[in-house]
Amino acid sequence: MLIRTALAACCILVTATSAFADDGLLQEAKDLFEPIPVGAPEIEGNPATPEKIELGKMLYFESRLSESHTINCNSCHAIGQGGVDMLETSVGHRWQQGGRNAPTVLNSVFNTAQFWDGRAKDLEEQAGGPIINPMEMASSHEHAIEMLNKIPGYAAKFKAAFPDDSNPINVENMLKAIALFEATLITPHSPFDRFLRGEENAMTAEQKDGLRLFIDQGCASCHNGINIGGGMYQPFGVVEKPGADFLPPTDKGRFEVTKSVDDEYVYKVPTLRNIALTPPYFHTGKAWDLRQAVAVMGSTQLGADLSDEDVDKITAFLHALTGEQPQITYPVLPPSTVDTPRPKP
Amino acid sequence: MLIRTALAACCILVTATSAFADDGLLQEAKDLFEPIPVGAPEIEGNPATPEKIELGKMLYFESRLSESHTINCNSCHAIGQGGVDMLETSVGHRWQQGGRNAPTVLNSVFNTAQFWDGRAKDLEEQAGGPIINPMEMASSHEHAIEMLNKIPGYAAKFKAAFPDDSNPINVENMLKAIALFEATLITPHSPFDRFLRGEENAMTAEQKDGLRLFIDQGCASCHNGINIGGGMYQPFGVVEKPGADFLPPTDKGRFEVTKSVDDEYVYKVPTLRNIALTPPYFHTGKAWDLRQAVAVMGSTQLGADLSDEDVDKITAFLHALTGEQPQITYPVLPPSTVDTPRPKP
Repeated sequence: MLIRTALAACCILVTATSAFADDGLLQEAKDLFEPIPVGAPEIEGNPATPEKIELGKMLYFESRLSESHTINCNSCHAIGQGGVDMLETSVGHRWQQGGRNAPTVLNSVFNTAQFWDGRAKDLEEQAGGPIINPMEMASSHEHAIEMLNKIPGYAAKFKAAFPDDSNPINVENMLKAIALFEATLITPHSPFDRFLRGEENAMTAEQKDGLRLFIDQGCASCHNGINIGGGMYQPFGVVEKPGADFLPPTDKGRFEVTKSVDDEYVYKVPTLRNIALTPPYFHTGKAWDLRQAVAVMGSTQLGADLSDEDVDKITAFLHALTGEQPQITYPVLPPSTVDTPRPKP
Repeated sequence: MLIRTALAACCILVTATSAFADDGLLQEAKDLFEPIPVGAPEIEGNPATPEKIELGKMLYFESRLSESHTINCNSCHAIGQGGVDMLETSVGHRWQQGGRNAPTVLNSVFNTAQFWDGRAKDLEEQAGGPIINPMEMASSHEHAIEMLNKIPGYAAKFKAAFPDDSNPINVENMLKAIALFEATLITPHSPFDRFLRGEENAMTAEQKDGLRLFIDQGCASCHNGINIGGGMYQPFGVVEKPGADFLPPTDKGRFEVTKSVDDEYVYKVPTLRNIALTPPYFHTGKAWDLRQAVAVMGSTQLGADLSDEDVDKITAFLHALTGEQPQITYPVLPPSTVDTPRPKP
């Protein structure tokens, strides 16, 4: 049985490779991209255990980490909605609206850095940001830890997740647990990934045409690698600056982090994985139409005036980047007691 | 094996009954209360199917039913938090705060009516309320249906749930699906339910003392039946009116529904199931301490000045009302498209 399966897989691979021998599409794609693995990737210095992931899931859904007790990670990075909130910019503490569109949590473990401006080097650092951002969860790390210490049910959960720590409820462990859970939020088996693994018919003819254009027009020079993006920084408007709606002059992107003029209006190239699930687009969230976003990218980044037909094909290819969505059992959170700090809505 | 199990169950029952023969506690409890069943109860006129329940779960988590696309049923009735938001009153559209504490969705199918004032006769009627309440989700039923019609992924889900309807995406079906999902959110196997079924040691001695007091002091004259509450209306302050913090004069309770002076300051007796998971307490949410809530109930409803020891025992019994919490797989929602109406935060 094992041998038969292996042989079958081998045959599929051979067939697929031959089918694209004429224009080398599969080989070019393999050189540029990498499929999402099936299991969660390891995080250096933060080895995974089921207890740590379970704790991280609880914290991901834990609204009491916010000042008002109404906002949690999942509020803006909703697991059942492509890992986003489908808003232009998120609604945070006391209905303040954030400055940039919420990026997807899905596959974010594969990004070079986190946030649109890359100001967090990894998921652990990222997870600490929104908790203390006065526009978002508006708490402090000290208060978050006090809160977790005063919800009695968390003591055993942290102990199980970090058995060697004498005082396991601390900021570092909170962020490690959240990051490990987030690393499980990956979406393998998209049609494109199945194609990359040699399954010729996983993508439609139109999607393959779109991939050909995506490579030939130059999209793949930035949107490449395992996340088809997420691996570098680029100015928005390499060839031609977009209008102020898409690129308001007040937000200078990575410049805010590095203070280098070279980084003005520079952003992390976003992942295109599951992009069909995550409107609206761009850091402003002002593009609701994926076709429009493709056309704008063509003109601003590549100086290409893509035809409607080409936009359609590239958009069709982008739909092939939707993978299998995470199946998460909603966590049961421990109750507050009379000693738990109260919400301040 | 089957015979042995049956014999064992029989023995437990006999033992338990004998153990309480001296004061008849189990028999009195059986006369007053009823355990939660293991499977979801049927809803008349709304037969359950897996497809309808699955659709209902999606709609329960569907923020696009709110004007801002940020609020869904689970925002205020969080499944992993005892079915509530653990706020005094909920935070709704544009950060408006609701007038009354959000009741738990868990076991709500067993309530005589819904809302604190019983203004909805059942879950279907209830589910329609928050969607159109300008303080909560602030949408309209027409807009909700337009929204669902313009999220293409819902067409097949509604068709599968309501296969005989030619136009299945309508208000009635939306509410039926939500209600059916909510009917699955029940919490069987609490220590008290196991006790009721004859498992003598499912409750501690203190909890049994608390149950004895709960019956003898008169708590059970209102908090009885399957939901240990949820079955009748009573004035808050039968014997002695509580202070304005707990009973502000501006909210006249069921009077707002019936306009009958007899219903001034009358509320539905809330369920006490999972009460340890659902602080804060009362329709104002002003009591954060379950012990305080017990003491206030004693003085206002029964004219009883309960000793600290009695309050402790009754509170211990209330902790025995925490059942097994629902295990829900977080639903994957279909994406918006360029034609889907936009959020208005």
